[in-house]
Amino acid sequence: MPKIVDHDERRLALADAVLALIAREGISAVTTRAVAEESGWSTGVLNHYFGSRHELLLAALRRAGDIQGDRYRTILDEEGTGPIEKLRNITASILPLDERRLAMTRVFLFFYAEGAAEETARGEIAAFLSRWRGVVRESVVAAQREGTVSADLDADAVTVALVALTDGLALQAILDPVVMEAISAEDAAARCVDAAVRRTTEEAGAVGR
Amino acid sequence: MPKIVDHDERRLALADAVLALIAREGISAVTTRAVAEESGWSTGVLNHYFGSRHELLLAALRRAGDIQGDRYRTILDEEGTGPIEKLRNITASILPLDERRLAMTRVFLFFYAEGAAEETARGEIAAFLSRWRGVVRESVVAAQREGTVSADLDADAVTVALVALTDGLALQAILDPVVMEAISAEDAAARCVDAAVRRTTEEAGAVGR
Repeated sequence: MPKIVDHDERRLALADAVLALIAREGISAVTTRAVAEESGWSTGVLNHYFGSRHELLLAALRRAGDIQGDRYRTILDEEGTGPIEKLRNITASILPLDERRLAMTRVFLFFYAEGAAEETARGEIAAFLSRWRGVVRESVVAAQREGTVSADLDADAVTVALVALTDGLALQAILDPVVMEAISAEDAAARCVDAAVRRTTEEAGAVGR
Repeated sequence: MPKIVDHDERRLALADAVLALIAREGISAVTTRAVAEESGWSTGVLNHYFGSRHELLLAALRRAGDIQGDRYRTILDEEGTGPIEKLRNITASILPLDERRLAMTRVFLFFYAEGAAEETARGEIAAFLSRWRGVVRESVVAAQREGTVSADLDADAVTVALVALTDGLALQAILDPVVMEAISAEDAAARCVDAAVRRTTEEAGAVGR
């Protein structure tokens, strides 16, 4: 019987190896040789799946986006958490405070810069932002429906603001220790949400923060 | 008499040529040859001042930072505008809605990605963010003093949030038409400020928005 190779699984394992490398050492550490070492596969196998360093990074970007998409789904589906708490969890899932999120922020920053010049990368980034806004908007509208966010606020504007604020904090945090310290505060995600929905601390307290 | 060459002025003119190129065609258009054409100087002269494409881009980054620093100074020194209006003007001065700001956002995004791997770029970015936070904080504290921003808010936290929100919007706008449309709204800068200081539309109206 011929050996059965699950190519999709192998691609995923290789993309995960790239993300592990990025988390530990940064984008510049990603070379075919280093990924081979990280994954335990030969550079020959790697070259079979990914023709260049750029393709390896693109696979890592898509993998990071998929993992984040699963994260969103889990957060939205969680029972017993209200929409404000979901918004906080969505926000916290982006801030680069562990290896997964650090690798994600780094690979996205790399492709943000690529995307300024290159349409494939730009499209990937725009699709990722659109999905992120989708889950945020769903929770903002739910919060407006239950009355914890003012119905006077424009849900689209709140969504764009919360996503941009979170993204700005994440990107700046990997470059600036002041911002990294700010997002390391226990209530950092709650503060982002409160700012986006224009809640003061007292209002937040009143609705059960 | 020997010919007097103002080297600083020539460096500035070359950096401006790089920024003009970036605004019109993006970072990838920056080559020694293209900058020579844009500036009217020979590639020989260019190579005398800047040893590589990377040095040309770094000069453009510093030039963009200096121009933005002058902009901040002008906004802070303007008489007859209150601190909330200054916060709006500082915010608006970053959003990439004309050639100057578009070039600035592009060159900063390029160096954000560089800065994730390289200490010189990281230091430049951190210094830029620190200066930006400095002018924002000054206006936040002034607004708290005059009572248009709640004294209960932490000025540092408001500052970090407003800078991250504005930066996130600027970076996303050059990749995502949805965000570009959002920041093109007439009240985009005012909305950013209101979110950071947790003002609702009604409160903003009440203090003379």
